[in-house]
Amino acid sequence: MTTINFDNVYMLGRATAVGPMEQKGPIGHMFDKAYDDNYCNEGTFEKAERTLVYQACDTALRKADLHVEDIEIVCGGDLINQLTSSHYFARDIDVPFIGMYGACSNSSLVISQAAIWVENQMAKHALAFTSSHVATAERQFRFPNEYGIQKKPTTTLTVTGAGAVILGRQKSAIKVASFTPGKIIDWDHKDANDMGLAMAPAAFDTLQTHFKDTGRSFEDYDMIVTGDLSKIGFSFLTDLLVQKGYNLHNRLHDCGLMIYDFKEQDAFCGGSGCACSMCVSLAKLLQHLEDNEMKRIMVIATGALLSPVAVQQKETIPCIAHAIVYERGE
Amino acid sequence: MTTINFDNVYMLGRATAVGPMEQKGPIGHMFDKAYDDNYCNEGTFEKAERTLVYQACDTALRKADLHVEDIEIVCGGDLINQLTSSHYFARDIDVPFIGMYGACSNSSLVISQAAIWVENQMAKHALAFTSSHVATAERQFRFPNEYGIQKKPTTTLTVTGAGAVILGRQKSAIKVASFTPGKIIDWDHKDANDMGLAMAPAAFDTLQTHFKDTGRSFEDYDMIVTGDLSKIGFSFLTDLLVQKGYNLHNRLHDCGLMIYDFKEQDAFCGGSGCACSMCVSLAKLLQHLEDNEMKRIMVIATGALLSPVAVQQKETIPCIAHAIVYERGE
Repeated sequence: MTTINFDNVYMLGRATAVGPMEQKGPIGHMFDKAYDDNYCNEGTFEKAERTLVYQACDTALRKADLHVEDIEIVCGGDLINQLTSSHYFARDIDVPFIGMYGACSNSSLVISQAAIWVENQMAKHALAFTSSHVATAERQFRFPNEYGIQKKPTTTLTVTGAGAVILGRQKSAIKVASFTPGKIIDWDHKDANDMGLAMAPAAFDTLQTHFKDTGRSFEDYDMIVTGDLSKIGFSFLTDLLVQKGYNLHNRLHDCGLMIYDFKEQDAFCGGSGCACSMCVSLAKLLQHLEDNEMKRIMVIATGALLSPVAVQQKETIPCIAHAIVYERGE
Repeated sequence: MTTINFDNVYMLGRATAVGPMEQKGPIGHMFDKAYDDNYCNEGTFEKAERTLVYQACDTALRKADLHVEDIEIVCGGDLINQLTSSHYFARDIDVPFIGMYGACSNSSLVISQAAIWVENQMAKHALAFTSSHVATAERQFRFPNEYGIQKKPTTTLTVTGAGAVILGRQKSAIKVASFTPGKIIDWDHKDANDMGLAMAPAAFDTLQTHFKDTGRSFEDYDMIVTGDLSKIGFSFLTDLLVQKGYNLHNRLHDCGLMIYDFKEQDAFCGGSGCACSMCVSLAKLLQHLEDNEMKRIMVIATGALLSPVAVQQKETIPCIAHAIVYERGE
């Protein structure tokens, strides 16, 4: 069995900070902090991303009514070579740090690892965070936006934002109930501008593993939400599941399709990036548990593990999806 | 307390694969597999690094008398943007994968995380691996070797190699006894060609934390071995410890100072890279436990968390050191 269950892990605080595009989107009012421009009052986009991380972590700590000294382990990661935002943030706090990389699946990856530390009493309180930024990610993986290269219609828009959670054993409204780690899946997709399609099979695999491990299906969840599959990848995943005989009960959704207003905003095929699943799940999805409107939600954060060098060497794009189940806690 | 102890984690198999420079070094005969050239029969250096990973993992599995189907979780990471060697290797095995990044501290990072999965019965058997390659790392962090840029005297030589371990609960000669995760330490060093100096304070911090947590000192270990501090960084660490009043009992060593013959080989200030601490500890250090010549060894893998972008933006180099204690198991 791949899925691991947690009996004593609760979310004590959670917070998000985003950029201007995200603020203007349909769930813009739900984020804790938003900046009017992508520089976030800094001189470089890299520093801007770090500012978003600071803001999210600081706010999460305040909401949990904890200080940084109360945190015993930090799990973090981001998209910039090599976890720049995470390392430069974590440098300023005096807490042991575990660096993780799962591309846009980071959100579930860092939260799950923090949960493992709390569940097994290796840490009383753990902080998990991740971030992404439209300007840093584009120049990391494709081309700097300043080049003005025309985007393909299959492209996604990297979410500018950061999210942070504080986990502990004290009961709260949001329980981190289980984690299904993903395998690396590669169905031979090669287009770095169509990562949604490449990632869909990974989400499909993790979802099937989770259902097999738990004996559950769609009707056991109020929502099952993938990270950033884009309109194309999400449609592909839906097809795969329907072909396999699953009844989706209209409960399958995607974070990247919730964060922007496709009529008003130029959001291509949807939002992507580590911050996409992190910010949407923390700000919107988990609020349903907090408000007692839902009982159980699964977030399947999806990551395209491409490297610019490997893509240039004509390699295909390996992908991964890590799933976390959140339940109403008390 | 930061240090976590393991009661039931043993090393069931371990293996290394290296390049030509490492083979010609003083411990060359101790590695399981060595290649005569840095391409390892592949067309690119990236693929060569992947071949080293394959070789190490395959050999470790054979030594543990296990098949890949027996492995329930894989923890891996490397230096190439973004864990290219690890992801492209793990794509070919049907096992859940946790991607980690701690620069050259990866060896202790991936082994410790795999140990956590085994100790807490989340996985029966876990595979942990890491790798580095002199040609891929140089072009990732500094300049491609093909440019022929003159090396500074403070520079280190990235070890070409990979190491893999299989962990499980069955008793063996090598017990994974404890893990002290590192904090990110930054003493304002800025020179990407002198990372040993930058990393020494991180090793110093983790060592102090470990001693404080356990009440032990140098005499409680047969060896305490840092990862890749270079002659300069190692000398700096020694100074820091002596100034602090520690009696080193001549038990402090560095993996990067063991792997090359400084008289015969052009190894600059010492070996570095994820494979440095991994290959030296697996091939040489742990053999002392296996041969019952030693009882307890600590490996403090050190990582310089620099990013080429951050260095260009005149940032300093944050560093980290993760320590694992290995004990004679039975």
